[in-house]
Amino acid sequence: MAQTFEVVVIGAGPGGYIAAIRAAQLGFSTACIDEWKNDKGGPAPGGTCTNVGCIPSKALLQSSEHYEQAGHHFAEHGIQVKGLALDLPTMIGRKQSVVKQNNEGILYLLKKNKVTFFHGRGSFAGPAAADGYAINVAGAKPDTLTARHVIVATGSRPRALPGTPFDEKLVLSNDGALSLTEVPQSLCLIGAGVIGLEMGSVWRRLGSEVTILEALPAFLGAADEQIAKEAQKAFAKQNLNVQLGVKIDEIKTGKNVMVRYTPAEGKAQTATFDKLIVSIGRVPNTTGLNHEAAGLKLDERGFVVVDGDCRSNLANVWAVGDVVRGPMLAHKAEEEGVAVAERIAGQKPHIDFNTIPWVIYTSPEIAWVGQTEQALKASGRAYKAGSFPFAANGRARALGDTTGMVKILADAKSDEILGVHIVGPMASELIAEAVVAMEFRASAEDIARICHAHPTLSEATKEAALAVEKRTLNM
Amino acid sequence: MAQTFEVVVIGAGPGGYIAAIRAAQLGFSTACIDEWKNDKGGPAPGGTCTNVGCIPSKALLQSSEHYEQAGHHFAEHGIQVKGLALDLPTMIGRKQSVVKQNNEGILYLLKKNKVTFFHGRGSFAGPAAADGYAINVAGAKPDTLTARHVIVATGSRPRALPGTPFDEKLVLSNDGALSLTEVPQSLCLIGAGVIGLEMGSVWRRLGSEVTILEALPAFLGAADEQIAKEAQKAFAKQNLNVQLGVKIDEIKTGKNVMVRYTPAEGKAQTATFDKLIVSIGRVPNTTGLNHEAAGLKLDERGFVVVDGDCRSNLANVWAVGDVVRGPMLAHKAEEEGVAVAERIAGQKPHIDFNTIPWVIYTSPEIAWVGQTEQALKASGRAYKAGSFPFAANGRARALGDTTGMVKILADAKSDEILGVHIVGPMASELIAEAVVAMEFRASAEDIARICHAHPTLSEATKEAALAVEKRTLNM
Repeated sequence: MAQTFEVVVIGAGPGGYIAAIRAAQLGFSTACIDEWKNDKGGPAPGGTCTNVGCIPSKALLQSSEHYEQAGHHFAEHGIQVKGLALDLPTMIGRKQSVVKQNNEGILYLLKKNKVTFFHGRGSFAGPAAADGYAINVAGAKPDTLTARHVIVATGSRPRALPGTPFDEKLVLSNDGALSLTEVPQSLCLIGAGVIGLEMGSVWRRLGSEVTILEALPAFLGAADEQIAKEAQKAFAKQNLNVQLGVKIDEIKTGKNVMVRYTPAEGKAQTATFDKLIVSIGRVPNTTGLNHEAAGLKLDERGFVVVDGDCRSNLANVWAVGDVVRGPMLAHKAEEEGVAVAERIAGQKPHIDFNTIPWVIYTSPEIAWVGQTEQALKASGRAYKAGSFPFAANGRARALGDTTGMVKILADAKSDEILGVHIVGPMASELIAEAVVAMEFRASAEDIARICHAHPTLSEATKEAALAVEKRTLNM
Repeated sequence: MAQTFEVVVIGAGPGGYIAAIRAAQLGFSTACIDEWKNDKGGPAPGGTCTNVGCIPSKALLQSSEHYEQAGHHFAEHGIQVKGLALDLPTMIGRKQSVVKQNNEGILYLLKKNKVTFFHGRGSFAGPAAADGYAINVAGAKPDTLTARHVIVATGSRPRALPGTPFDEKLVLSNDGALSLTEVPQSLCLIGAGVIGLEMGSVWRRLGSEVTILEALPAFLGAADEQIAKEAQKAFAKQNLNVQLGVKIDEIKTGKNVMVRYTPAEGKAQTATFDKLIVSIGRVPNTTGLNHEAAGLKLDERGFVVVDGDCRSNLANVWAVGDVVRGPMLAHKAEEEGVAVAERIAGQKPHIDFNTIPWVIYTSPEIAWVGQTEQALKASGRAYKAGSFPFAANGRARALGDTTGMVKILADAKSDEILGVHIVGPMASELIAEAVVAMEFRASAEDIARICHAHPTLSEATKEAALAVEKRTLNM
């Protein structure tokens, strides 16, 4: 007999498992279905983020940053090392153990919150019946559940280049890029987005000669232009070679990978690489969901069509995270997951998409919230801008990492902060203050007048706010 | 003839140089007097903070942290090093160059803001005259200035143990502790305050066997008790041996330092150390100011007596920073410096002493703002508490540093945040969000509902806020 739940969540990535936990906290009988497998065939909840995204990339970024520091910066600190060597299997193994901790942590959380977990692929069995939707679980133990409410949180998967499928040996997605067994001597990345830059950073630090080919003419188009330029300068200094406006003409795999491409200016050329990472975006994961059976509406790109509150075209069917419109960010998925569970409970939560922060974990890190200068210009809004370089920040000097700046954009009249853009050390953590400030509709002067601990990197945020008023104290 | 200024600031530490810059920005003719000398006898503005405090200690903490990572944690990251060795002169030299950058930065800032700098000791020549106060500068080029307003920002100096003056060879203050030419095999610290813990951390990482003797029965009494306990556990794991409730009976110096002391429980004992660092607090720097001549009132401990707005007993004489009541923190001095300049200009700035953050840069770092749990209990205020361990934070796991927690205290009824206490990685930077939240009188629920980027350490702050409402998502 089918088990009946008030809420069934399909997918246990950050959107799904968080939605399930919140639903259970609100008193609903809740199930969460996820098919991800660990290397022993057991469940590995957490989705792309935990298994082949945020978490493992940050583990490798940290390890590779240590390696970089040891190889290139220890001497200036007065630390001598001889025989610096990389033990890649151990580094990858550490990353895997961090992933495993997170998988197990999520299973523990689901259990603790009394969410029933099913290991397998969840899909619609058909349209809504009187008692709700029938959901099939295709796994080692097939099952059918009945759900009053369904939350689709099936996430996304990497987009392949047409004609060049991922083989995860020579042509790698984020998955393969995080699990190489040796450092490729030469590495090509197609796509200079978040994933491309993070993976390029890891392997460059570990010794690869990295070439990043990007189709778009602008570097990091979603970021503030000035910040993107500053980041590009820093990457160039690290020999992270990014070419923009590149047309990919042909890719051939054999013993290695041949890429024929045409640069923005110049003639077509051919280069051979040990490995190719393709990071040209991600597509929603709706194949296998059997959405037609239920009558769930997708858009032409495969996203589940939802309104601002994550409601689909079907009564009591919701969708959150990468599988719906909006930025593919784990924390955006989480916020949507919480909000949907609360809406099912009759609450009225609100998500302000303008205050969802973006982070890129390169070195320097890049993070921002709110609007970019180019967006403000385009919308004709009168604004003031202020920025402060980490080169003038005491803690950055003490750390030995003075790349980058904090930039604040504020309304010309009201002084309300409209955007905060950071490239530099710990940008990922510094952005939290800016998000809180924007949620409280702080003015630049508010931040300028709030005491910031000395010596901290966060003082650069205060000084950028002072710069909006043209009265920096330390520049 | 005496040069006449509207504002003369005595001291160019964080309180003084910032006050001078702000006064100049507000249109006053301003001078700043400072006697600190660099190793060539030239000016070295920035005070204790820049020369022998915040900045050089953070430089050494960073360098020694790299050394610690290489020696103890690289293996788990898959990084092999052979022949790890310390080149202490280079490490100390790097620290000195960071200090020099800051000294030069401040001289540049003073010049850029049209503040006239005088190198020497500033002191009152006598009581107020019709045109203001006469201020003597005793330096290579003696001078006398006339000032309509005087801001005393002479800072503080380390307190010596009675009968045991600092010789900076065997018995060290923060100054000597930052400039050792070799790593002492055994090191005793008397005083487990901020400076003691930071210096103890540096030298333990570099190889010293460190013993910290503290007179008080409680560890880090100013911090939240739970946080202090967590920190103490972490330090004990690092073999940073802290003994509490210790009575120092006798200190003898010869070839090395003999310390006879009585532990809280047990008999008097004697131990011999290569070096002794005394960090039992700091005293205000008012000797040499010739305050009697002007009639400036000091309290029995030597602090300049001021009201909440930094006004002394004398018309137009102000005092800021370590030389007045309140915590001896660089950023508190800065805030006071700005506020005094603005008050001279007729503005009405306000400093909320309750939202001045505290930071200790050990590993794990410790930072807090607002009230501790024991203070709330003592005042009888009804409160709720929530905490979240970094062990359950994805980024902390990826970094490989999961020590500590974030703890939030909120009013039982209104949910307003009353205190935020952090021990763990990057606590110094994470506290900025908490300060902004408290300045906006945020509730714990506000923080719980604000999107935090994933994966970041700042998510632990969000989860601690959720814990206040007993509905953590990731614990």
